[in-house]
Amino acid sequence: MIRLGLAGYGYWGPNLARAVSGMKDARLEMIADMSPKALERAGLAHPGARLTTSIADMIADPNVDAVMIATPVSTHFDMSMDALRRGKHVLVEKPMAETPERARIMIAEAARRNVVLMVDHTFVYTGAVQTIARVIESGEIGDVYYYDSTRVNLGLFQRDVNVIWDLAVHDFAIMERLMKSTPVAISASAAGFLQGRPENMAHLSVYYENGAMAHLNVNWLAPVKIRQTLIGGSQKMIIYDDMQTSEKVKIYDCGADAPDAYQQMISYRSGDMRAPALSTKEALVTEAEEFIRCINAGSTPLTDGASGLRVVEMLAAASRSCSMRGFPVDLVTLKEAS
Amino acid sequence: MIRLGLAGYGYWGPNLARAVSGMKDARLEMIADMSPKALERAGLAHPGARLTTSIADMIADPNVDAVMIATPVSTHFDMSMDALRRGKHVLVEKPMAETPERARIMIAEAARRNVVLMVDHTFVYTGAVQTIARVIESGEIGDVYYYDSTRVNLGLFQRDVNVIWDLAVHDFAIMERLMKSTPVAISASAAGFLQGRPENMAHLSVYYENGAMAHLNVNWLAPVKIRQTLIGGSQKMIIYDDMQTSEKVKIYDCGADAPDAYQQMISYRSGDMRAPALSTKEALVTEAEEFIRCINAGSTPLTDGASGLRVVEMLAAASRSCSMRGFPVDLVTLKEAS
Amino acid sequence: MIRLGLAGYGYWGPNLARAVSGMKDARLEMIADMSPKALERAGLAHPGARLTTSIADMIADPNVDAVMIATPVSTHFDMSMDALRRGKHVLVEKPMAETPERARIMIAEAARRNVVLMVDHTFVYTGAVQTIARVIESGEIGDVYYYDSTRVNLGLFQRDVNVIWDLAVHDFAIMERLMKSTPVAISASAAGFLQGRPENMAHLSVYYENGAMAHLNVNWLAPVKIRQTLIGGSQKMIIYDDMQTSEKVKIYDCGADAPDAYQQMISYRSGDMRAPALSTKEALVTEAEEFIRCINAGSTPLTDGASGLRVVEMLAAASRSCSMRGFPVDLVTLKEAS
Amino acid sequence: MIRLGLAGYGYWGPNLARAVSGMKDARLEMIADMSPKALERAGLAHPGARLTTSIADMIADPNVDAVMIATPVSTHFDMSMDALRRGKHVLVEKPMAETPERARIMIAEAARRNVVLMVDHTFVYTGAVQTIARVIESGEIGDVYYYDSTRVNLGLFQRDVNVIWDLAVHDFAIMERLMKSTPVAISASAAGFLQGRPENMAHLSVYYENGAMAHLNVNWLAPVKIRQTLIGGSQKMIIYDDMQTSEKVKIYDCGADAPDAYQQMISYRSGDMRAPALSTKEALVTEAEEFIRCINAGSTPLTDGASGLRVVEMLAAASRSCSMRGFPVDLVTLKEAS
Repeated sequence: MIRLGLAGYGYWGPNLARAVSGMKDARLEMIADMSPKALERAGLAHPGARLTTSIADMIADPNVDAVMIATPVSTHFDMSMDALRRGKHVLVEKPMAETPERARIMIAEAARRNVVLMVDHTFVYTGAVQTIARVIESGEIGDVYYYDSTRVNLGLFQRDVNVIWDLAVHDFAIMERLMKSTPVAISASAAGFLQGRPENMAHLSVYYENGAMAHLNVNWLAPVKIRQTLIGGSQKMIIYDDMQTSEKVKIYDCGADAPDAYQQMISYRSGDMRAPALSTKEALVTEAEEFIRCINAGSTPLTDGASGLRVVEMLAAASRSCSMRGFPVDLVTLKEAS
Repeated sequence: MIRLGLAGYGYWGPNLARAVSGMKDARLEMIADMSPKALERAGLAHPGARLTTSIADMIADPNVDAVMIATPVSTHFDMSMDALRRGKHVLVEKPMAETPERARIMIAEAARRNVVLMVDHTFVYTGAVQTIARVIESGEIGDVYYYDSTRVNLGLFQRDVNVIWDLAVHDFAIMERLMKSTPVAISASAAGFLQGRPENMAHLSVYYENGAMAHLNVNWLAPVKIRQTLIGGSQKMIIYDDMQTSEKVKIYDCGADAPDAYQQMISYRSGDMRAPALSTKEALVTEAEEFIRCINAGSTPLTDGASGLRVVEMLAAASRSCSMRGFPVDLVTLKEAS
Repeated sequence: MIRLGLAGYGYWGPNLARAVSGMKDARLEMIADMSPKALERAGLAHPGARLTTSIADMIADPNVDAVMIATPVSTHFDMSMDALRRGKHVLVEKPMAETPERARIMIAEAARRNVVLMVDHTFVYTGAVQTIARVIESGEIGDVYYYDSTRVNLGLFQRDVNVIWDLAVHDFAIMERLMKSTPVAISASAAGFLQGRPENMAHLSVYYENGAMAHLNVNWLAPVKIRQTLIGGSQKMIIYDDMQTSEKVKIYDCGADAPDAYQQMISYRSGDMRAPALSTKEALVTEAEEFIRCINAGSTPLTDGASGLRVVEMLAAASRSCSMRGFPVDLVTLKEAS
Repeated sequence: MIRLGLAGYGYWGPNLARAVSGMKDARLEMIADMSPKALERAGLAHPGARLTTSIADMIADPNVDAVMIATPVSTHFDMSMDALRRGKHVLVEKPMAETPERARIMIAEAARRNVVLMVDHTFVYTGAVQTIARVIESGEIGDVYYYDSTRVNLGLFQRDVNVIWDLAVHDFAIMERLMKSTPVAISASAAGFLQGRPENMAHLSVYYENGAMAHLNVNWLAPVKIRQTLIGGSQKMIIYDDMQTSEKVKIYDCGADAPDAYQQMISYRSGDMRAPALSTKEALVTEAEEFIRCINAGSTPLTDGASGLRVVEMLAAASRSCSMRGFPVDLVTLKEAS
């Protein structure tokens, strides 16, 4: 029985708490939040958990085996390090840290202590992304040519992070799962239309070692909510539309072979389309199970520190490219330089 | 009665011929195409027109007052110049020329001869774009923050032009009509997934003098056809979805004021949406009428040489940026340098 | 402060409890359910409410002013009568009773005791139906010609009620709100494709005194979920699509005048379309407020006993018509005969 | 080489002429229309065909082997009989005649003369209906439980026929192709909202011998165009949405077995969905080929006189039911009585 401590009961914490509360081999031991009001809500929903306003006390508590960190980004590093140094497993919100350097230190610490360090890239555990990953791994769509995502809506203007850190981070995590090559460069441009606020619109291109490309269109100032990703392969193509209530993932049998493409018109859709049934299990529950499973088995989670680091590296490179009006930033250099 | 000559009866020529054939104050006098087979089809459809395999003869014919040029891009300059020098009005396919330099020479020649030089930017004459232009001009949506277009499908791989010249050119022409500022720089990246073929996927960012941005996503290797443009304004936003059979243009009353945006969550859609009825008149007919009207009145068409030139400048700048992996190319410099 | 008692904490009861728990002038005093397990859940969610396994005790409790009944249909009459006879206000689930006769007795009892009798027709309190009602009342769409609803999905096969009692009842309640005439006859046909189960598919036509018509298509065995209603008026038409996340209600300016309709083709959509912003307030909360407001003011709720009775009459007439393979059943006769 | 004569060059005739003009083993010999203006258009489009204002002369012409009749319904019987009596093959517009009696006489005459009598039920030859027919015949969807079609739009008010004869006739023809049982009764109700015009809205239920049902919702006064058919089977279900540009036919793996359906909630969509690639060949061309093939082979066309008769029987029964406010009309009795 793994005894879990939760740091932060604001926006996301309650979801984590709920996800782990139904598990057989884990128990929500403590909830820590600086706000007494948040703790009151936590107590009503989780009467079995001990409450504290001191996150440090919770992390230090001998009855806590693993810590889930759902606090602002700026605190991820210190809290995670505190827990890791005490030999406790950590599940930390994305992005795992503010800089690649700090993410690397966290990974090294987890390795030294031989504990699990996992990043909460929730989308990776959805039925949709799991199915797409399986389809790509099966070779059904052939080589992945591109990942092209539109993630826009009329959204909350964050005070501290821009639209890249808020929305593109989801795509980075999904790409980390789906793309079978190493990202080598990022070109990003961003614009802020409201004075004194963070950028609310950005376009990013990610170049992969094998020639594949990813492109992200993220925007907080769009009239409708769009969550649509096209994935082009040499044999088939995929549309992942997260706004659909059914048929979120469609696989089109319409790959273009070079000779045909040259000599004649490619027909609009030459083959069948198939929308596989997706698991309806809640992504957070799947993720929580992965965390507990890896703790018990001593294995590496799907969204481990290494994948979390690459997401942070992409965020850092995107920010740097933005400041240079889209000048492409080399990811490998960045890595080596740091 | 304006007597028209048509150069080229291949893919687009028949549409132009049909569009002008019902007009009261113009007549299709001659059709020229090098292919006897094309001419045969032309004769069946337009028994009243004289036919010739010599485009030069048609242009020189004293009974031809104005020339419509629907031949490959590489021939636009020579044919247009031939006609202009003979004092004939010209309606030329887009892009009007292969380089900005040539476009400028054409404009100068038309001015010298005091004839109409018009570019066939058909989309500008659709009911949808006309309505959007009117809405923007009325001030209803406030300042235009961005134009964000997705124009993808499973398409014919052209032999000679890449996806930017084939698809983005439409957006450039529409932006030329809608954006109320001068484009100052373009950043573009393109990828070709089929060896030895032109690039089939590209992403372009256009920076405007007043801070507005345009972004284009064009792709020949997409599983479905998407023609969707978001236009964000300070007061309202527009979605233009050309794949819809009705309600192609939707205006959302969801502008975000800075103070509200900062202090609280912007609601998903705070106001009404309205889909204005669009003119169902065929765009090419509207365009042909504009051509004849300008010839008769000696006035400047909506899509004149100057707008055609800016489209060519954007194409040239986009190509240059692509060759530098997205490095932004200054449009003003380009103009002055040339 | 109105002290509320809730009978039934199964599927719907928790929603009612939650809806009233945030109100200022009402308090959830007691929750009654025969199942101790249900009561345990009730206690966790509503620690301030007293719990009992005896619904009769709750109804008789002197500290309960008004009763909300969320138990199976077969119990509605007895429980409601028990409460009404004790001078308590009643909010009862739809359908309010199994027969029109019983519904009439309930109405008479409520009138005699001078208490509020309200039926839980939740859809009537949604932002969508409220907006449509307002649009119709404003005269904007002119005379209402028809109400045509498709309400199908892959659904649970109920043991005791057929698809008409499960799904068409929602439309009956909405029609009761929107249609400005008296229903005079119903023709209904139903089919059951799974042996030994209630009918899972039905089509109903409702004839109104003024010539208007309603038509309902309800089905538990459909591949996708559809919730779409067309409302045709002499001036404008409405589409109410409850599966849309935004733009649930669209108003089309496309009325057909008789002379035009005869002489020429009616254009596909001659005017603008408008999607009004809808209230996002939860329907159940609006409904609970209406209940408390009517108790305090001694006024008649929007969905009072009389409207509940007409819904039950329509259900009864529909069932009778089904047993005669669609033979139309006169609603007025039915009323007088009973 | 079959020499074809076409009667009628109004709305539909030009389509038939175009469809046969590209065939190898047939030739458009003559076109007849009472209107000289129509003939002029015919001559321009089909310079090889002889023209006449006398349909009788065309039918009698010794160089005409087969006649295509695209004139108003009221003339179908006389013209078809004239041609059949002269031993000529006939392809006649739907509905083939105004009454079942006349349709039967036509069938008998064709049999006596040993010539092909085919009805132009164009929808039956579309890629979509062909694919659905193949899927049903393969047994993939199991027993067909129902056919449920919505065919509404803002349409032309016809002077002489109501919405059933204009729109439901298409569904009758498709049902004739897809349903594997005999229709035994029809219940139909119709309403006309514009005074002095034919009924513009109707709902029809068709009962089949094996318990299957069809339901049609047809309407000329709807705000949007809907062409959607649900087909429910014991193993799978189909959606046929003719307004989609791609994926017109979707097959859902969501059949409900009786035991599961009773014991537990049927999940929203338990299996995969598949959208088969459809033939993009023009339906009219497929149909014309079937006509010529049957003439040459002496075989029976897919849409022969017998299927045309059943469509006319259904139209007659629907009209009779409408006049009795939905009272179901027995199709078998009708047949025997006539």
